[in-house]
Amino acid sequence: MSCRIVFIGAGNLATRLSLELQGKGYITEQVYSRTESSAKELAVRLNARHTTNPADIVAGAGIYFIALKDSAWDEVLPHVAFGDSLVVHCSGSMPLSALKRFAKNTGVFYPLQTFSKDTPVHFKEIPVFIESASGEIETKLREVAESITGKVSVMDSESRLHLHVSAVFACNFVNHLYALAAEILSKKEISFEVLHPLIMETAGKIQHSTPVQAQTGPAVRFDQNVISAHLKALESDPGVKELYERLSESIYNYHKKM
Amino acid sequence: MSCRIVFIGAGNLATRLSLELQGKGYITEQVYSRTESSAKELAVRLNARHTTNPADIVAGAGIYFIALKDSAWDEVLPHVAFGDSLVVHCSGSMPLSALKRFAKNTGVFYPLQTFSKDTPVHFKEIPVFIESASGEIETKLREVAESITGKVSVMDSESRLHLHVSAVFACNFVNHLYALAAEILSKKEISFEVLHPLIMETAGKIQHSTPVQAQTGPAVRFDQNVISAHLKALESDPGVKELYERLSESIYNYHKKM
Repeated sequence: MSCRIVFIGAGNLATRLSLELQGKGYITEQVYSRTESSAKELAVRLNARHTTNPADIVAGAGIYFIALKDSAWDEVLPHVAFGDSLVVHCSGSMPLSALKRFAKNTGVFYPLQTFSKDTPVHFKEIPVFIESASGEIETKLREVAESITGKVSVMDSESRLHLHVSAVFACNFVNHLYALAAEILSKKEISFEVLHPLIMETAGKIQHSTPVQAQTGPAVRFDQNVISAHLKALESDPGVKELYERLSESIYNYHKKM
Repeated sequence: MSCRIVFIGAGNLATRLSLELQGKGYITEQVYSRTESSAKELAVRLNARHTTNPADIVAGAGIYFIALKDSAWDEVLPHVAFGDSLVVHCSGSMPLSALKRFAKNTGVFYPLQTFSKDTPVHFKEIPVFIESASGEIETKLREVAESITGKVSVMDSESRLHLHVSAVFACNFVNHLYALAAEILSKKEISFEVLHPLIMETAGKIQHSTPVQAQTGPAVRFDQNVISAHLKALESDPGVKELYERLSESIYNYHKKM
């Protein structure tokens, strides 16, 4: 197999993964994105060509990485002449089988991390989950994955979906709670920075203990005085107040079960 | 004022704060806790005496630190002969005025961090918020706080309550989301460790950008295909599924406002 790569998608994941692979000697030949500026920006960083036209995606690459929102697949993938090339998607939530309609040789290459175009990450620590119906493809994907990380596992589509859901809780939802915390502080003109050490400590704690052991706060203590004072403080924001109640209930019920 | 200290409470905060102050030359004379084992354990670490009887708490200390669940105040504090000594509480949610019933010279000393008895923390980075109606007491509290951290601020009780609510979102609720993520993974026998790098990156990102800039995931993209797949994966756990829906709605509504 050739090592020439095409990236279909030029978002956060495509950017960080393609740059990391470039550092390991993999050459990205072309970048596709619907958005001209995104396609061009990543292509320049990779010294590759770019296109916004699915029909202009080159044939015969070694690997096509699909890093598109899955709702965009149908607009793009039917127009690409994949032939016998290896086509892999990078989505936690899509099954391997979803690629069958578009290509013969398929796989999944899912790095579990939150990516931003301009924030380098330590790939060596990032778990990458691969899947393929073919042993040969699995070997190839393992080789590519092991070039960037020490943490490669084979995982089936259903487990990967659950993994993706858990990542939404541990990353996307967590970040939203940071946003709500920032909003609560801004009403009293307190800088969000005061929470930085607390946030790092909270994340750091569960690297060495379980989240159940690490749980603190009024809800797990069932400290109704504090909870009432908090709900009163949130009265001007009913949406945030309701989330406070739901999450407190969830903590209380969760620990009652233990 | 004398530097002799009494800790009323021997929980996570009392343990870390008293040990840190000990390292800076402050001497804890006595530890009170309702629970004999907790009182004794901390007293041994501090080379102090301990008691479980509020009436045996010594008189005439330089500072009494109240680090009790506030629902326990009424059982304990009326029995202590505070006299003219300085009495400070360490609670984010209780106003300064709540101490007036028990003592003449009062203040607040609130370190914003999540503490565990056996996990040392870098106090130097931890913001400490102080409050007192007296300038003299404020100066004393600032001196004590500055011995352990470079981040000392004066904050009034109402702002501190909001700060405490924001900390519940950024720490206690966040930790609960880690627990739910672990539970989702355990159903597929996936180790929680796979999420460690994602959790650290998510916390690390907002040290340099705002949570609004850092938001990723299906809810902010309004990616309904992915959301539907996730909800289906959560069908066996209605409580978690409902939280997923609430948090996704909250993210979507929050970013729509922007």
